[in-house]
Amino acid sequence: MMTTNFYAPPSQIRGDRILLPEDEVRHLRSVLRAREGDTVVVVDGEGGWYRAQIDHLAAEQAVCSVVETRENVGEPEVHLTVGLSLLTKRSRFETFIEKAVELGVRRIVPLHTRHTEPESIRRERLHNVMVAALKQSRRSHLPDLAEPQSVEALLEEANAELRLICHEGGEAAPLLSVVEENENADTVLALVGPEGGFAASEVEAARSAGCRLVTLGARRLRAETAGMTVATGVMLYGQRRRAQGQ
Amino acid sequence: MMTTNFYAPPSQIRGDRILLPEDEVRHLRSVLRAREGDTVVVVDGEGGWYRAQIDHLAAEQAVCSVVETRENVGEPEVHLTVGLSLLTKRSRFETFIEKAVELGVRRIVPLHTRHTEPESIRRERLHNVMVAALKQSRRSHLPDLAEPQSVEALLEEANAELRLICHEGGEAAPLLSVVEENENADTVLALVGPEGGFAASEVEAARSAGCRLVTLGARRLRAETAGMTVATGVMLYGQRRRAQGQ
Repeated sequence: MMTTNFYAPPSQIRGDRILLPEDEVRHLRSVLRAREGDTVVVVDGEGGWYRAQIDHLAAEQAVCSVVETRENVGEPEVHLTVGLSLLTKRSRFETFIEKAVELGVRRIVPLHTRHTEPESIRRERLHNVMVAALKQSRRSHLPDLAEPQSVEALLEEANAELRLICHEGGEAAPLLSVVEENENADTVLALVGPEGGFAASEVEAARSAGCRLVTLGARRLRAETAGMTVATGVMLYGQRRRAQGQ
Repeated sequence: MMTTNFYAPPSQIRGDRILLPEDEVRHLRSVLRAREGDTVVVVDGEGGWYRAQIDHLAAEQAVCSVVETRENVGEPEVHLTVGLSLLTKRSRFETFIEKAVELGVRRIVPLHTRHTEPESIRRERLHNVMVAALKQSRRSHLPDLAEPQSVEALLEEANAELRLICHEGGEAAPLLSVVEENENADTVLALVGPEGGFAASEVEAARSAGCRLVTLGARRLRAETAGMTVATGVMLYGQRRRAQGQ
């Protein structure tokens, strides 16, 4: 039994047969020294989780047969979307992407904000970071990575029961207080701005769209840290609620 | 008024006079284009916070006079020590160090565990990461960075009202539940193991020393992510408690 999960998109899974992609096979053979007959766990990134046996292992492909099927293994009950400002230091946005996968975020929306330098994303690179974290964390959903968009466009499109915007200010409430008041919300949207903060017009648009203003504490957090913190708060609260509901 | 804090260790502060170290002066002059008469915020890393005016600015030094003194600005009420296993990838330990400062951790103890490769720390490099995060986050205490030690040595030395060890297992309770049950604890110790987990003997030593076993959720977190998660949970809970107590 391998300790790391493998990833195969749904197109590689037909009935009870899984064809592992080439880079997964390379890892299986050269790092893990796998052999035919060994068992692996494969996730499809869309909630599918399979325990499978390696029937045929060649240089560039592995054919497996499904032994056990489960769904949404490692997934939280809450569907969390985080909109995070694009950052000048791309490595910091990548750190956020990796941690967001580990923390159970389902959708990541890079934001163009008034105080953000115009930045793009390197989609293929971020996809690879996400797939590595998907396998490492043993979850089964690969988060959606949206195209960069404005705060206003995200507010228009997103359909969440609880909407949060991280913004220090008089009326901002502690994150956990707001999450607790809305503990039955199954879909959450959280907006996190750049280090210069959101512009007043963005905060106003969020407020008009029903966002609650939340504060993450007395220290000034880097943008990617704020993104991780809000995801952590939502997930830890959900974990406690689930345990109490048992 | 500068947006970033400056750092001067207590030895540089005499009465109401602050001598800014050379690297801070370089930043003041070349990046911030500061001039005599400008105001800066200086923290001493031991809880001291000073608003000060630049009286004299030369190539290699700046002399400031204190205008306002405060204490423990940006500091949480809870004194949190995190013991985190040393990691093979040093950049991941550094990421943890930076985030721990932002999140308000007061003491960081690198751990040698049974499942950790023998690693050392680059103390000067980590100190620089910590100072940068101290200034960025606008807190006033620079966390202590202890010498690497074993779980048993840390348990022996640490004096915390609430002791936690992150360890998946039947009796582990959700982090927030345990924090809530102990909400009056002002000192907390949290132990986080390597990706291979703590050895059974380490868990047993922790349990004997009064540690509660906590789980951080259904996903397998990287060690540095687990360290950030436990710090985030403790801090967010403290923030909510403080707001409710007002």
